[in-house]
Amino acid sequence: MDRAIGVIDSGVGGLTVAHELMRQLPKERLIYLGDTARCPYGPRSEAEVKQFTGEMVAFLMEKQIKMLVIACNTATAFALEDLQKQLDIPVIGVIQPGARAAIKTTVNGHIGVIGTEGTVRSEAYPNALKRIKEELDVTALACPLFAPIVERGILTGPEAEKVVNDSLGPIKAHQRIDTLILGCTHYPLLKGTIQKAVGDHVAIISSGEETARETSTILDVHGLLYKGDRTPRHAFYTTGDLEIFTNISRKIFNSSVEHLESVTIEHAVI
Amino acid sequence: MDRAIGVIDSGVGGLTVAHELMRQLPKERLIYLGDTARCPYGPRSEAEVKQFTGEMVAFLMEKQIKMLVIACNTATAFALEDLQKQLDIPVIGVIQPGARAAIKTTVNGHIGVIGTEGTVRSEAYPNALKRIKEELDVTALACPLFAPIVERGILTGPEAEKVVNDSLGPIKAHQRIDTLILGCTHYPLLKGTIQKAVGDHVAIISSGEETARETSTILDVHGLLYKGDRTPRHAFYTTGDLEIFTNISRKIFNSSVEHLESVTIEHAVI
Repeated sequence: MDRAIGVIDSGVGGLTVAHELMRQLPKERLIYLGDTARCPYGPRSEAEVKQFTGEMVAFLMEKQIKMLVIACNTATAFALEDLQKQLDIPVIGVIQPGARAAIKTTVNGHIGVIGTEGTVRSEAYPNALKRIKEELDVTALACPLFAPIVERGILTGPEAEKVVNDSLGPIKAHQRIDTLILGCTHYPLLKGTIQKAVGDHVAIISSGEETARETSTILDVHGLLYKGDRTPRHAFYTTGDLEIFTNISRKIFNSSVEHLESVTIEHAVI
Repeated sequence: MDRAIGVIDSGVGGLTVAHELMRQLPKERLIYLGDTARCPYGPRSEAEVKQFTGEMVAFLMEKQIKMLVIACNTATAFALEDLQKQLDIPVIGVIQPGARAAIKTTVNGHIGVIGTEGTVRSEAYPNALKRIKEELDVTALACPLFAPIVERGILTGPEAEKVVNDSLGPIKAHQRIDTLILGCTHYPLLKGTIQKAVGDHVAIISSGEETARETSTILDVHGLLYKGDRTPRHAFYTTGDLEIFTNISRKIFNSSVEHLESVTIEHAVI
């Protein structure tokens, strides 16, 4: 099936999900749309997030995508259910895959979740976890400084360590947490620093990795996997500034710059 | 949705998958059918395995299952594709979930797979892996002594260690393998001993855990998750001896015997 996987995000954070999709599904073609002009979605109302998400989906549906990945926690929390009902293609968000992976991984049932203030306030992760398994102890913690330091490129070193250590105090103090969900698409870039802060006995779940894994599952079960052999040409669109988007993309795709050669980045008018 | 998840296996090995389904999806009800009377399927012809599998599926479809899990590597290799086409409910096998988890986990692309001689000869795992990602190095190794020692209850200690160490020689000698798939439903019971043999730098993937995880994904995407709150009553059927099946069940559900109180074990005539 030659149609592409569509990926939407409020901006650049979802590029970590796109990166994982490329790694785990190297034959699949992606069309990514980042709404950088109206980012962040976190502080916006539910109605606004639904409207913006709908506009992005319309842009991608015109490009005949075979599946939609909502690579933004806020958009997943507000729009996933509606989109699953409205669209005739499979739709997946970033929250449920992380929740399912945490349920698989935890041994003692004590799970931590870190995310933006909006994601934590929405209780989307505790709800997704307890919908499947009531008897879990879930501790959610907002880490509002993480996304900003990632966007400034501070991923390791003393400054990153100080911010991460200070922010994660309540998670470390909990002691029994054995599984920590990174509930924001920016956080995988801080994974090394976060692991150091919480210790090796805590398993870290990256929602992006898990979302890519489940995209693979769903494509397979629906008979939608690309069956040939190719190096696909991806297309990346941004509603905002092309140069900033390109620069951040290069930072996120850091260790696999070769992918960027097969990427087109264009400005989207939606 | 109050209908049960159907699980079929050639015998008792699939009980490890059932155990994981209970752990990861504690609200879901299971109907398990083990074809102990005609076990093992490994040495049988493709036609025979397809026929037996079809008979088991007919038994479960009468019980109005909402999804089918093929918890047997041989049956998955031979019958999954046909059943996905024939049945109007979602069908999942044990091979693809393990393959997808390994692709997610490996860092250097060197993956090991261990299984019965039949599973290794079928090349089902290398095929499932390379269908998604060509550029993997896959080493498959048959460990014919593992299932027998598990069935004799020898899971740790000097005898188990000797068998496991001797059998895994070629995996250890490979040196670059960073991810090892347990491609037989009996092997999770030897996980500790296997981890000790290959070293902590190798991530071990249990197909059963991953199959349960993907069952959760598929139920969610199809809107089939049970939405209420309950402790479900499971039903286990065997085509063979009831007492032997019950004894092995107790061994597999070892650490969570409480589950057995909510289990009915009956003889199945198919």
